[in-house]
Amino acid sequence: MTDPSDALAIAADIRQGRRSAVSVMTATIAAIEVRDTSINSVTRIFGPRAVAEAERIDRRIAAGDDPGPLAGVPFGVKDLFDIAGEVTTAGSVVLRESPPATHDATVVARLRAAGAIPVASLNMDEFAYGFATDNAHYGITRNPHDPARLAGGSSGGSAAAVAAGLLPLTLGSDTNGSIRVPASLCGVWGLKPTFGSVPREGAYPFAASLDVVGPFAGTLDDLRVAYEVMAGGPMPELPAVSDLRVVRLGGWFGANVSEPLVRAIEAVAAHLGGVETVELPEIARARAASFLITAAEGGNLHLPRLRRHALRYDPATRDRLIAGAMLPSATLVQAHRFRSWFREQVHALFRSADVLIAPATVGEAPLIDQPTIVVDGQVVSARANLGLYTQPLSLAGVPILSAPLLGTGGLPLGLQLIAAPGREAALFALAGALAKAGLVGRVPLPASKGR
Amino acid sequence: MTDPSDALAIAADIRQGRRSAVSVMTATIAAIEVRDTSINSVTRIFGPRAVAEAERIDRRIAAGDDPGPLAGVPFGVKDLFDIAGEVTTAGSVVLRESPPATHDATVVARLRAAGAIPVASLNMDEFAYGFATDNAHYGITRNPHDPARLAGGSSGGSAAAVAAGLLPLTLGSDTNGSIRVPASLCGVWGLKPTFGSVPREGAYPFAASLDVVGPFAGTLDDLRVAYEVMAGGPMPELPAVSDLRVVRLGGWFGANVSEPLVRAIEAVAAHLGGVETVELPEIARARAASFLITAAEGGNLHLPRLRRHALRYDPATRDRLIAGAMLPSATLVQAHRFRSWFREQVHALFRSADVLIAPATVGEAPLIDQPTIVVDGQVVSARANLGLYTQPLSLAGVPILSAPLLGTGGLPLGLQLIAAPGREAALFALAGALAKAGLVGRVPLPASKGR
Repeated sequence: MTDPSDALAIAADIRQGRRSAVSVMTATIAAIEVRDTSINSVTRIFGPRAVAEAERIDRRIAAGDDPGPLAGVPFGVKDLFDIAGEVTTAGSVVLRESPPATHDATVVARLRAAGAIPVASLNMDEFAYGFATDNAHYGITRNPHDPARLAGGSSGGSAAAVAAGLLPLTLGSDTNGSIRVPASLCGVWGLKPTFGSVPREGAYPFAASLDVVGPFAGTLDDLRVAYEVMAGGPMPELPAVSDLRVVRLGGWFGANVSEPLVRAIEAVAAHLGGVETVELPEIARARAASFLITAAEGGNLHLPRLRRHALRYDPATRDRLIAGAMLPSATLVQAHRFRSWFREQVHALFRSADVLIAPATVGEAPLIDQPTIVVDGQVVSARANLGLYTQPLSLAGVPILSAPLLGTGGLPLGLQLIAAPGREAALFALAGALAKAGLVGRVPLPASKGR
Repeated sequence: MTDPSDALAIAADIRQGRRSAVSVMTATIAAIEVRDTSINSVTRIFGPRAVAEAERIDRRIAAGDDPGPLAGVPFGVKDLFDIAGEVTTAGSVVLRESPPATHDATVVARLRAAGAIPVASLNMDEFAYGFATDNAHYGITRNPHDPARLAGGSSGGSAAAVAAGLLPLTLGSDTNGSIRVPASLCGVWGLKPTFGSVPREGAYPFAASLDVVGPFAGTLDDLRVAYEVMAGGPMPELPAVSDLRVVRLGGWFGANVSEPLVRAIEAVAAHLGGVETVELPEIARARAASFLITAAEGGNLHLPRLRRHALRYDPATRDRLIAGAMLPSATLVQAHRFRSWFREQVHALFRSADVLIAPATVGEAPLIDQPTIVVDGQVVSARANLGLYTQPLSLAGVPILSAPLLGTGGLPLGLQLIAAPGREAALFALAGALAKAGLVGRVPLPASKGR
């Protein structure tokens, strides 16, 4: 049977009549029902409508139509993307009684137009505010590589569903690292596209000046096709890898990194024939600015609802949103001033580099019963701090591909590949070369957890 | 003698050897010393250095050099533009002991490179926060048309010095109307260029996302040359006036307008063969957003200094800056969200119009001993409210030329000519046609105040 984690292989089978879209869809739904119980990545299955859509795909193929490059591919969405006729909860009970969405989110509509079929909504931190996918209302999503561990967040359901082989393709959103962190901890591919390049219409917002939506996938080719469909057109031709100047971020991005992760990055650097290390200035401030802008913009967004329904929020989310709304504006103005300066520092690096590489997290997924990480010798909350390496870069709006490292010998670890705005092609070129060399790729589940 | 309010005529005299730059400069200094006592537009005269610069201009001309289109023209700057070697006070005592500026502000350097000579710093509301030029430390600037009345602000010294015939050219800044309001009340030309088009380096900031620097002049040609020099190059060719679609802003911009101002605007409209009226939505909110963004950005800028020297601030400025700094960030985020929306509403008008016209103030300059205006039947502070018609438009970053109306039979009144970003040429084209028709132009001083 075709690998259920390979979207293009599934589409090829369906388009060429080797399997029906309905058989793929029913198998997908069955797998979720049986196997998601231990992971809790899925919050709702859109069973009847997904099967009906699959039937339409099969009829079109029978009629000689081409339903598109992702014909019949089941996909899932972080539960903040609108799907016409379904309620978008954004992981909260506050929105659970909202009216159903009247339209698909633009990226959902685009994927549908390419033949893909939304079949499930996926778990997340409430209102995307967290790095743990520990949701007070919908439960915690467990890491498929070790169910005693966090999947990371806030798009944890999206990463875990791909890692578990339940869905070949999922959508998430990344404000401070919410695609990159769970992709890394679950060992799958994730892309945070250039800020503003992929439409956010119909995606429940969090912090408008930082939010980006993007795909998770089990193969790099799937990630690329999903991204191109979501962005509304193909990328420019990929550059030759030999032309790419790859530089490693040091300093902040070198401290606190676990031993296996250091070794994996060294192996990547060695494969590239050695790479120079550069340092970005004022990373701690960049992270603080990202925290503050997120809290203020999120607080503004939620304030009217908090006034009426504060007690229905997850306490951790609620308190941070209220604090953000009440932050003195002078602090927010300062964060934006800093951000302008910092963005220029990041962009300046791209005058002498095409791709920057940096770890995505400090190390492997934390244990659920000990949801902490160690930073500079201090034990700190995983929920707030797993974005140590992702958050500062969010300020710059640059595209970042989260590549799962192979051969680390343990739990998944991820590498951020970072390019100048609009230079996604450079990221896919480098990722392809590293995948070919066996250095990155979807991390297989341990044998006992395998299918 | 050449009109001391005509910069190009002065430059022509000097370039052609009819007068020396030194004689122009000494006459200018003498006039300020004698006649500014009743106006208080000038805070400092840079006498020795200005005369020395004039000597250099004369030597260059004697040597056959061309010192530039503004050769030997004396100009003044609102006291927030750096002049190398002088202290920039921004109208405060807080900065009075700062070290002297090490460089000229970019626009000062450009005017100097065109031959002009800075000779005076001009009075302003403290830190540019006000519409009155009522400065707790440097006194009030009086309106040359009636010394019992306000000159308007915050660039009141810049407008009054031109109106009084003391200087042919001055520089001001406009955050919420600080060029347009005093230009109107003093009957001179003023230009708020497109946001971002004229460099602000070396101009003491106020609200970074709104601040624009621009010129005041006694003739439209002088205004144009000054603007082109400040912007670093000539405008595109002026469009034919017959091709310009002129539209009048109604609603908010029609309410509260004094009778003479209504009649003057009707005369302009009639001359243009009748103009359509359009309304912008949500002007009250636009004004509120501009107030809030100004207070927050100004508050952020001043907070470190307020922590140390609060009691050295003008109480009115201090209290608004502190309130702005402490504004809840959710409010500021909302103001920015509104701003994005409102900017689109303004830009949308330019799909069917080239120039919008609107009054610059509700009417003539208020009396100093009764510094109030009437808005919707309420008596409100002039200092905070004279920007009723200028402030909302600041949000959009569009270029606005303040044209002094003629034939109103009383104190000066101004008309805002508003274009899409970068379309200053349309403003100068229309202003030129209206000036040719005798509808706009520098308002002559009453005979008793004349030179």
